[in-house]
Amino acid sequence: MSIIDLILGRPLASSDERAQQIGVAKGIPIFGLDALSSAAYGPEAALTLLIPLGLAGVAYIVPLSTSIIALLVIVFFSYRQTIAAYPNGGGSYTVARENLGTFPGLVAAAALMIDYVLTAAVGISAGIGALTSAVPSLHARTLELCLGALVIITLVNLRGLSEAGGVFLLPTYLFLGCMVTAIAIGVFQTLASGGNPHPIIAPPAPAASGAMVGVSVWLIMKAFASGCTALTGVEAVSNGVKAFREPTAQTAQRTLGLIIAALIIMLAGIAFLVRSYHIVATDPNGNSYQSILSMLFLAVSGRGWFYYTAIASVLLVLVFSANTAFADFPRVCRAIAEDFFLPISLATRGRRLVYSQGVLILAALTGALLIGFGGVTDRLIPLYAVGAFLAFTLSQAGMVAHWLREKGPHAIRNMIVNAIGAIATGATVLVVIAAKFVEGAWITVIAIPALLALMYGVRRHYDRVHEALASPEPLELGDLTEPLVIVPLQQWSKIAKHALCLAFSISKNIRVLFVASEDCSDELHNDWNSHVSAAAQAANAQIPELILLPSPYRFVVQPIADYILQASKDNPGTRIIAIVPELIEQRWYNYFLHSQRATLLKALLLLKGNNDLFVMNVPWYFK
Amino acid sequence: MSIIDLILGRPLASSDERAQQIGVAKGIPIFGLDALSSAAYGPEAALTLLIPLGLAGVAYIVPLSTSIIALLVIVFFSYRQTIAAYPNGGGSYTVARENLGTFPGLVAAAALMIDYVLTAAVGISAGIGALTSAVPSLHARTLELCLGALVIITLVNLRGLSEAGGVFLLPTYLFLGCMVTAIAIGVFQTLASGGNPHPIIAPPAPAASGAMVGVSVWLIMKAFASGCTALTGVEAVSNGVKAFREPTAQTAQRTLGLIIAALIIMLAGIAFLVRSYHIVATDPNGNSYQSILSMLFLAVSGRGWFYYTAIASVLLVLVFSANTAFADFPRVCRAIAEDFFLPISLATRGRRLVYSQGVLILAALTGALLIGFGGVTDRLIPLYAVGAFLAFTLSQAGMVAHWLREKGPHAIRNMIVNAIGAIATGATVLVVIAAKFVEGAWITVIAIPALLALMYGVRRHYDRVHEALASPEPLELGDLTEPLVIVPLQQWSKIAKHALCLAFSISKNIRVLFVASEDCSDELHNDWNSHVSAAAQAANAQIPELILLPSPYRFVVQPIADYILQASKDNPGTRIIAIVPELIEQRWYNYFLHSQRATLLKALLLLKGNNDLFVMNVPWYFK
Repeated sequence: MSIIDLILGRPLASSDERAQQIGVAKGIPIFGLDALSSAAYGPEAALTLLIPLGLAGVAYIVPLSTSIIALLVIVFFSYRQTIAAYPNGGGSYTVARENLGTFPGLVAAAALMIDYVLTAAVGISAGIGALTSAVPSLHARTLELCLGALVIITLVNLRGLSEAGGVFLLPTYLFLGCMVTAIAIGVFQTLASGGNPHPIIAPPAPAASGAMVGVSVWLIMKAFASGCTALTGVEAVSNGVKAFREPTAQTAQRTLGLIIAALIIMLAGIAFLVRSYHIVATDPNGNSYQSILSMLFLAVSGRGWFYYTAIASVLLVLVFSANTAFADFPRVCRAIAEDFFLPISLATRGRRLVYSQGVLILAALTGALLIGFGGVTDRLIPLYAVGAFLAFTLSQAGMVAHWLREKGPHAIRNMIVNAIGAIATGATVLVVIAAKFVEGAWITVIAIPALLALMYGVRRHYDRVHEALASPEPLELGDLTEPLVIVPLQQWSKIAKHALCLAFSISKNIRVLFVASEDCSDELHNDWNSHVSAAAQAANAQIPELILLPSPYRFVVQPIADYILQASKDNPGTRIIAIVPELIEQRWYNYFLHSQRATLLKALLLLKGNNDLFVMNVPWYFK
Repeated sequence: MSIIDLILGRPLASSDERAQQIGVAKGIPIFGLDALSSAAYGPEAALTLLIPLGLAGVAYIVPLSTSIIALLVIVFFSYRQTIAAYPNGGGSYTVARENLGTFPGLVAAAALMIDYVLTAAVGISAGIGALTSAVPSLHARTLELCLGALVIITLVNLRGLSEAGGVFLLPTYLFLGCMVTAIAIGVFQTLASGGNPHPIIAPPAPAASGAMVGVSVWLIMKAFASGCTALTGVEAVSNGVKAFREPTAQTAQRTLGLIIAALIIMLAGIAFLVRSYHIVATDPNGNSYQSILSMLFLAVSGRGWFYYTAIASVLLVLVFSANTAFADFPRVCRAIAEDFFLPISLATRGRRLVYSQGVLILAALTGALLIGFGGVTDRLIPLYAVGAFLAFTLSQAGMVAHWLREKGPHAIRNMIVNAIGAIATGATVLVVIAAKFVEGAWITVIAIPALLALMYGVRRHYDRVHEALASPEPLELGDLTEPLVIVPLQQWSKIAKHALCLAFSISKNIRVLFVASEDCSDELHNDWNSHVSAAAQAANAQIPELILLPSPYRFVVQPIADYILQASKDNPGTRIIAIVPELIEQRWYNYFLHSQRATLLKALLLLKGNNDLFVMNVPWYFK
C-alpha cells in the first residue's frame, strides 16, 4: 500500500461507481451543509443591519424572515421540478444552456463558480473565526488554521464523495439536533409564559435603544438582501443528482426537501425566538460582540453543557459548509468542460471517481483568497448572494422555456411554478446588486464577464485544434524513404555504441555529430576509423558521416541543436530523427553529478522543432 | 539583446580570455579585498579580548600585532614561492594534493571551501551590520539588505572577473587612502608631541580600568587566535594566478606583495596608534559600543567629512570583502571537480568565462547561512581562522615536499622558507583550535570530514560510471533486425497518421495501441480497416497489429506504459521503439488546455525502462 493510497484511498474502478453513490442520510451533509449552515449567519446578517433601530428593529425580523422563507419555498418547488426534468444533473448551467442558449448557460455557470469559491473561503474563515473567538490564544494563527482546514477538506474530497459524507454526518446532525432542541424549548417557554418568556441568561440591552432612527425602505431592502445569504447553497443538490442512489431523482428530491424543511424550521424558529426574547444583534466589530445564536442558546438554556455542545456544532458546521462548494464546484466545471468551455481535464474522474482537478482548482483559488485576506474574509460575505441568485434566476427561466416546449399534461402548471421562481429570484438579484453594489457586489459584476471571456477563449482554441487535426482521409503511405538519423556523441563509450547500433537498425542515412574541443579531434578521427568505419564496412552497411561542430562559446547543446534544426530546414519534407543518448541515474541524488545536456537538448529541439523532426531517447541505465 | 544579456553581459568566446585577464590594479580589489578588510576586524577582535585588562591591556597590542605581522611575512614568502612554482594556479588544494597526496589535498580544499562560505556570509553581515548601526531605521530590514547585497555580488561575479574588479576598485582604494592618511596623521602627531599626542576627540575611558585582572597565557593566546583572522584571505591570489595578465606569475606575485604590504602597514599603524592614543576596545554588546577604527579616526581627525568618508569606505570594504570568496571559491571547486571529487559541471566555464555554477553554489550556501542566522553572523567569526590556517599549513607542507623532490639550485633555501611557514601556521592552527574550540571551531572540525566523505563519494561514483561505460572495443553491427515499433493512439487524427507514417518508415514490425473506452471500439475497428489496413496493403507493407487495452480505472497512461514495459520484458534483446505523439502548443498559456499524457508517458517509460527501450517523440506543432 503506497503512501498515496493511504492518503487518498485505493483507486476505484469505474464499475465501483454504484457503491460510491449516496442516499438521503449522507446527501444532507454533503449537499446541504452550505444551505443549513446559512441559518447561522443569514438571520444574523439581516439583524446586524437593524442594530440602529434598537429594540424596535426586532419587530421587522418576522416579516423579513417570512419573505425569505417564502422565497425559499418558491425556490424549492422550482428546483424539485428541475431535478425531475434533469435526472442526470440539472445544474443551472445545464438547464440554462439547454433551454436559453449557450450564453445564459455560461453566465449561470460563471456566477455559480465564483459563488462557490467565495463560499469555500468564507465558510472556512467564518468557522476558524468562531474558533479563535472561543480560544483567543489561537488568534495569531488564523491563517495557518484556515489553510490547515482547507487541506483537510481537500483531502477528504479527493478521497471521494461517500467518505466525505461520513466525515460530515455527525456535525451536521448534531447541529440540527441542537437547533431544533433550542427552538422547541424556546417556543414552549414562550407559549407557557403567554408570550413573555423569562430568559435564563438575558441578552444584552441594545446600545442604541434610546436613539430614534427613521425606518427607510432602503434599510429594509439591505436587511433583506443580507438575509438572502441564507438561501445560498440550495442549488447544490440539483447539480449533484447523479451522485444519488437509485432512484436518483426521487432520492435527490427527498434530500432537497428535507434540507429546505430543516432550513425553514430553523429560520422561522430563530425569528420567533429573537422576537419573543427581544434579542438584538451586537456590533460585530465591538468588544462585547456576541452572535445571535449564542445569545439565543444562552436565553433558552443558560451556560451549561448544552450551550457548549450547540456552539461547538455551529463552529464545525461553518467550517464544513465549505465542503458543499467542494462537492459541487467540480461538477459544475465538469459540465462546462464537457462542452469544451473549460480544459477537458476537468471532466476526467480521478482515482476515487471524483473530478479531482476541479477539487484542486477550487482548493487553489480558495487558498489564494484566504492568503490574500489573511484568513479573515468578512468583507467577501456581501458578494456571495449575487452569484447564487443569478444562477437561480437563469435556471428557473430556463425551466420556463423548457415547459413551453414540452407541452406535457402539467406543463402549464409547472411553467407557472418556475416562472414565479424566476421572477422572485430575478427581483432578488436586482435588490441584492442594488443594496450591495458599493460593498462589493461590483466585483462579481466584473468577474463574471472575465470568466466568460476565458471560457469562450478556451472553446475557440479547442475548435481550432479540432479543425486542424481532424482527418477523415485514410492513411497515405506514399513516401516511406528512410529517415535521416543524426546522432550527437560526446565521447566513445558504450552509450555511443548503443546509440549507433540503434541508428543502423532504423536507417542507412546516418550523421554523427561531435562538438570539437581543443585537444581531442585527432584521437576522435582515429577512433572513428578503427571503430565505426571498419565495422560498417564489415557489416556491408553505409558508413555514417562524421561532422565536427566548432563551439567558440564552450556551449555543447547549442551547436548540436543549431545543426539539427538547420539540417531540418535544409531538407524540407525529410524525416529527421535526432538520437539523444542519455545516462539514466537510478538514484535521485546522483542526478547532480551529470550534465543535464540530454534534457536540455530534448527541450530545445521540442521547442524549436517542426512536424518532421523527431527526437528519440537512447537511455543507458546505470545502477 | 535579451534580458539575460543585459543582466549577465553577452557571452564571451573562449578566445576572449586574454582580454578578461587582470593586472595588479584590478587584482588588488578582486583578490585582496578579503585580506585588506580584515584590518578592520582583526585588531578589534584581539583588543576585545583584552577589555578586562583595561588600559593595561593596550600594552599587549604591540607584541600581538608584531607576531601577527611576522606570521604574515612568513606566509607571504611561502606563497610567493608557491605562485612561482605553480603558475597555473597553486591553491592549497593543488599544492597539497600534488606533493602530499590526495587526502591532504582534499582536507585543504574542504577547509578552504568552508572558510569561503563563512567569509562571504560574515563579510556581508558585517557590512550591513555597520550600515544599520549608522542608519538605525534600517535595522528591521537587516536580512533583506543582506540578501540584496548577496544578489548584487552574485550578479556582478556572474558577469565576469574584469567587471567585478571595476566595481570594487573605488571602495578598495578609498579605504586604503583613508587608512594610510589617518595613520600618517597619527604617527606625525605622536612624534611631534613626543609620544603623547592630544586626541581631537578622546576615546572613551575603559570601563574596567580600576579592576585588576591577572594576565594569563590563555588570555593572550585567545587574543592572538582572534587577531589571526587578519590573515584570512591571503591565499586567494595563489588560487587565481591564471586570472592574471602575462607574465602571470610575476603579476600575481606583485599583487600579493602589495596586498600584504598594505595589510602590514595598516596592522602596524593601528597597533601604534592604539597604544599612543590609549584606545581600548568597547563591549560589542554594550550600548556605548564604538569600533576601534571609529575611535581612531575620531582621535586623529575629529568628526568631520574625513571621518564620514573613512567610515563609509570601511562599510563598503566589509560588504565587498565577500567578493574574494566569490572570486576564489569557484576556482577551488573547479580544481576539485577536474579531479572528479565534485560534480564536473563545476569545472565548466559559463557564458562570461567564470565558473558560474560555483558562484551560484556559494551564493546558495551563503544565502542559507544568512537566512539561518537572520543576517547576524557574529557567532560565525570564531570559526573562520581554522579553515584558512589549516589550508595554509597543508599548502606550505606540500611546498616542503615539492622542494625535497625538486633538488634545484635554491631548493634547500626555498624548502627552509616553506618549512618555517608550515611550522608557524601549523602551530597557529593548534592555537586557534584550542582557543576557539568551545566557541565554534568544533563545527569546522566536524564539517571538514563530512565534506571529505561527500567528495570521496562523488569520486567513487564517477569511477564506477566510467568503468561501466568505457568501451575500448570497436562497434559490432551483428544484429541489425528492425526494431519493434509501438504506437499508442488516442483517436484517428492527423497526428495519428503522422506517427504511423513515421513508424512505417523505420520498421515493418508495428503495433498500435488504443485504450478502450466504453463507446468507441466499433468505430475504431471500422476506421482501422478502412484507413490503415487498406493503405498498408496498397503500399505492399505489413499490416500493423491493433491492440485494445482495457482500463478499468480510467487511467490512460498507465495501461500504455504497462503494455510497453511488458512487451520489452517479453522480448529480451529486441529493440523496442515507443512512439509518443504529442501536440505542441506554441503559446504557454494553452499548455493547460491539453492533457499532459505524452509528458507523463515519456517520464514513466524513462523511469522504468531499460537499455533496449527507446522513446521517440512525434511532435505536432499547433500554431
